[in-house]
Amino acid sequence: MKTMEKHDKYPAHGGDCKQNNIRLDFSVNINPLGPPKSVLNALKNPASLLGKYPTPDQYALRKLLEAKRNIPMDRILIGNGASEIISILAGAIATRKLKNSSTENSGNILPVASVIAPTFSGYERALLAYGFDIKYFELTECYDFRFNESFIDRGIKDIDNLDLVILCNPNNPTGEAIPKTLIKKIADECQKRDIILAIDETFMGLVNNKSKYSCESILGKNKNLILIDAFTKLYAIPGVRLGYCATYNEELLKAISFIKPEWSVSTFAEAAGIAALSENSYIDEAITLIEKEKKYLLKELSSLGFCPQEGDAPFILFSIPQKYNAKTFYDKMIKDHGILLRNCSNFHGLDDHYFRIGIKKHEENVELMKALKNVSSYCSQGTRLQQ
Amino acid sequence: MKTMEKHDKYPAHGGDCKQNNIRLDFSVNINPLGPPKSVLNALKNPASLLGKYPTPDQYALRKLLEAKRNIPMDRILIGNGASEIISILAGAIATRKLKNSSTENSGNILPVASVIAPTFSGYERALLAYGFDIKYFELTECYDFRFNESFIDRGIKDIDNLDLVILCNPNNPTGEAIPKTLIKKIADECQKRDIILAIDETFMGLVNNKSKYSCESILGKNKNLILIDAFTKLYAIPGVRLGYCATYNEELLKAISFIKPEWSVSTFAEAAGIAALSENSYIDEAITLIEKEKKYLLKELSSLGFCPQEGDAPFILFSIPQKYNAKTFYDKMIKDHGILLRNCSNFHGLDDHYFRIGIKKHEENVELMKALKNVSSYCSQGTRLQQ
Repeated sequence: MKTMEKHDKYPAHGGDCKQNNIRLDFSVNINPLGPPKSVLNALKNPASLLGKYPTPDQYALRKLLEAKRNIPMDRILIGNGASEIISILAGAIATRKLKNSSTENSGNILPVASVIAPTFSGYERALLAYGFDIKYFELTECYDFRFNESFIDRGIKDIDNLDLVILCNPNNPTGEAIPKTLIKKIADECQKRDIILAIDETFMGLVNNKSKYSCESILGKNKNLILIDAFTKLYAIPGVRLGYCATYNEELLKAISFIKPEWSVSTFAEAAGIAALSENSYIDEAITLIEKEKKYLLKELSSLGFCPQEGDAPFILFSIPQKYNAKTFYDKMIKDHGILLRNCSNFHGLDDHYFRIGIKKHEENVELMKALKNVSSYCSQGTRLQQ
Repeated sequence: MKTMEKHDKYPAHGGDCKQNNIRLDFSVNINPLGPPKSVLNALKNPASLLGKYPTPDQYALRKLLEAKRNIPMDRILIGNGASEIISILAGAIATRKLKNSSTENSGNILPVASVIAPTFSGYERALLAYGFDIKYFELTECYDFRFNESFIDRGIKDIDNLDLVILCNPNNPTGEAIPKTLIKKIADECQKRDIILAIDETFMGLVNNKSKYSCESILGKNKNLILIDAFTKLYAIPGVRLGYCATYNEELLKAISFIKPEWSVSTFAEAAGIAALSENSYIDEAITLIEKEKKYLLKELSSLGFCPQEGDAPFILFSIPQKYNAKTFYDKMIKDHGILLRNCSNFHGLDDHYFRIGIKKHEENVELMKALKNVSSYCSQGTRLQQ
């Protein structure tokens, strides 16, 4: 597995930061404010949460989400993080194809999915695990990895027997958000062809002017559309796993619910989610901070000669000069500065000169920039010495 | 769905006990001692656990399990509860069949599984979700639901294209443990036919004389064997989800790992597991308590004219007289006494006159028996009045 090998060289986030002497983990891209106090309070008495079984359907949490998102609670399914939702969605669609094939005796057994590249590598992982044939719509570097309407032809119409389209909005790692108007066109095309369109809005909650991009308001009008979201990034709580999906497609929601392992949402996760939804100003504060710091980081990264992508997400993709040794660059950031970056070589379509950073608080971003300057200077000297 | 409808009438455990005024939940069958202090301590600082991502492969926990179970850590996969393990095992085997069918163009697309009945309803749920054709080996009431060697013929040899056998040991809800000698014979037969044999030992940790039953020691000798276990019941921590599987079948372990959603084991679950494995006398104390209380409950249940099954598990299956109205019996236990029983009607092969109780501490068991006497007296009077 190409992906796995690359992971070994550049470990994904989630590694043991203590063990690797990492002080600042810029590889994660979560709310820079850290977990809200309400959530910490909700979990401070573990005895009350440990000894009881999870609720079977997270009624209380779905009720709160209904109010927050204006989506009826019976259209919502809670899962053990967005990653579980993505996995069981892939599983449900693969199983449907398997069952249909066994009765129809048709030749098309393997399910087919369309994704863009680069995008979140978790889709590829989940889809391959369930035997999907994956078609990639490649975003090109020369157009700054911009998504465009030609996806409707090349990413949908041109693909035979397509079952599932997954889009990340805003896209990880490029940061670009697709406007709702374009999402609607794509969704309409999917509806015509009875293809499921999954929009992963895991980062949407931290996007400025979210209503321009989120598919929330068009969900009720298109039964082929399914929205995926999570609490992880929005409330900076990756330690408990909590995500959800919403769709007006009853058959699909039933199939996903059925394939979801029982009791998969821990009592800790549900309690955290309920507390998080009581927050009001927390999200606005985070967005204000992210927008301000994004401007700072984009300017500073450019001034170093790196090529950052301007985007809508709470993270930034940038590339370092091709002449730098990317592995040396990555390692020195850890060894000399205790800073972990996300190397993007395991994203289909990117090489190891691409890095992604989460946006943190100002002092931390300043520290990052100092370290980048220092390591950049070392790498460019190394280049000169080798010449 | 028959199963779903039955669930509505008799809710599974995990419901909101507070809402239903339940004081004593005998529907759960977990360690009667409650969560050990070490686990509570490990979770008392949620801030340190919330903000970091789960480890990708639970290295520290697997290392401890290696020592505890004498199974190499690279043969162990940690999951979000045994329920996730069961689900992804079913998913991995269904996907393998799908992929093979697409290349071989063979007629056998749907995967086939063999389970006994009655047994844990979660197998049926997971298998149906992935399109399995399920074959049931029915244990009969007239033989006290005893498992026997004829399973090798009727549960394995007689089934065409069999992919997977799942056995619960000791079996839920009958409580009987299958001796390791018989497990070995079954495993040998599965190996001959390249069938995966999954042994769910979720309750094994609370069984007296465990070494007579657990397949732990024969795991290394049979690549078709996979052991499933969990922390939930053993350490009374159903609120965090933590289970695992172990097999010497590298290909299978890789397929299951691949299908498992990323980051599915929360930081809370891993911390709880690490702390739990430091416990020593806790498990022995629990087994001593369970054995003593089991004797008490079996005697008392018999004296009421109920038919309890003598078993090896930390719970007891019993039936109430057929003339009783089972729904009235169940409801009155809740309404008059605040005691929740597990009605077993959603177990394939049992009707609603079967109930399962977890074994609790003596005072609680005494309270249960008082309530059962009272409700039993009411139900038998009701019967007389109707006649």
